Amino acid sequence: MSAMRVHVAFTPDEVLEAPVAVVVDVLRATSTIAEALASGYRRVFCCREVADALALREQLGEGLLGGERSAVKIDGFDIGASPREVLEPRGETLIYSTTNGTRAVLAAAAACGEVLLGSLLNLSAAAGAVREDCVIVCAGFQGRFALDDAYCAGRIVERLDGEVTDAAKACAILARSFPSAHEALLARTYGPPGLEEDIRFCAQEDVVDVVPRLSRMVDSAAEIGT
Amino acid sequence: MSAMRVHVAFTPDEVLEAPVAVVVDVLRATSTIAEALASGYRRVFCCREVADALALREQLGEGLLGGERSAVKIDGFDIGASPREVLEPRGETLIYSTTNGTRAVLAAAAACGEVLLGSLLNLSAAAGAVREDCVIVCAGFQGRFALDDAYCAGRIVERLDGEVTDAAKACAILARSFPSAHEALLARTYGPPGLEEDIRFCAQEDVVDVVPRLSRMVDSAAEIGT
Repeated sequence: MSAMRVHVAFTPDEVLEAPVAVVVDVLRATSTIAEALASGYRRVFCCREVADALALREQLGEGLLGGERSAVKIDGFDIGASPREVLEPRGETLIYSTTNGTRAVLAAAAACGEVLLGSLLNLSAAAGAVREDCVIVCAGFQGRFALDDAYCAGRIVERLDGEVTDAAKACAILARSFPSAHEALLARTYGPPGLEEDIRFCAQEDVVDVVPRLSRMVDSAAEIGT
Repeated sequence: MSAMRVHVAFTPDEVLEAPVAVVVDVLRATSTIAEALASGYRRVFCCREVADALALREQLGEGLLGGERSAVKIDGFDIGASPREVLEPRGETLIYSTTNGTRAVLAAAAACGEVLLGSLLNLSAAAGAVREDCVIVCAGFQGRFALDDAYCAGRIVERLDGEVTDAAKACAILARSFPSAHEALLARTYGPPGLEEDIRFCAQEDVVDVVPRLSRMVDSAAEIGT
């Protein structure tokens, strides 16, 4: 039996075809979605634009609106984008608007048969669900490499024990170079201030065992369930 | 005085505007060009296609033809692409055909004011020539991340002591994770076999002090001098 092949795309632009994609946006989309589905939401819609989220709620007739722009809650939305805001479900449906995370999910859906979502919160569950050649798709930040996502990708690579590409090998090296996930997330050089509590939250490992996966597209929104 | 900003583009597609670009294609374009200029060649033309190289020699009326495809010397060319073949100059002009390296030089030229070429062979000289915000442009392999180029980029990042992006910080971490340059180059997962001697050669550090730089474009070829 040949080894599972494991690649990492540092940005959504670099996604290659693979049977399985694991999308990673540690701060904060994939962490928040894992937490939401673990806490009792039945589905999470990832919407790229605020208008898409508003239109989707209109169409569905339900749904809690969550999201941010530049780390600030979107005006008129029910909650921001923090995983700490979804610990108590307030309905079955979360309609969530992100930029980097949604873009990564859409790029993965276009190239891969199955799209899973990974984070540190569900690290072992996400890695354990991969049984074929895979590409780990980092959301990155504004189309560029992000250290936090590469770190999490490396943690997944380590668990897969597959045949790695240079990018996957580099992520595994990065993963081993930090004494803790929290230090790795703090090492990132981009992003707005004020996320300290979320960074601490998202640095927790294996606190939920859900594996969020793309179930279908509803117009331009990605519906994620378990 | 604010710190010099240092970014790394893992592939030519990711080049951003910057005053200075340092192109890195350790195996083997930037190593061979540094060695050629150090050993007495006055200029090296980087050509993307074999036909471009042949046309340029016709136009110039001189020039040694060097290059490879899949690590094999191009039929009809004078030498292959190895830095060990340019240790004794056989003229003033080397016409060199590469794919990844030339693409990186052209992408850098389109976005940056000054284009320098870096390798381990001229590591300190190349890093020492950077005095403004810069992007280190890894040639990569077939449009993808290559560990050897990222390692060399990290070695340059360490010497610049600037304000780093996530990508530059990741390269510095990778650079520190290998006990030697030779081990880093051997860790790459791609590429044809048979390059052992060149890998050993290109892993030497600071053996030449030239800083190859783009002087001009001649049609689609990049003319590199010192």
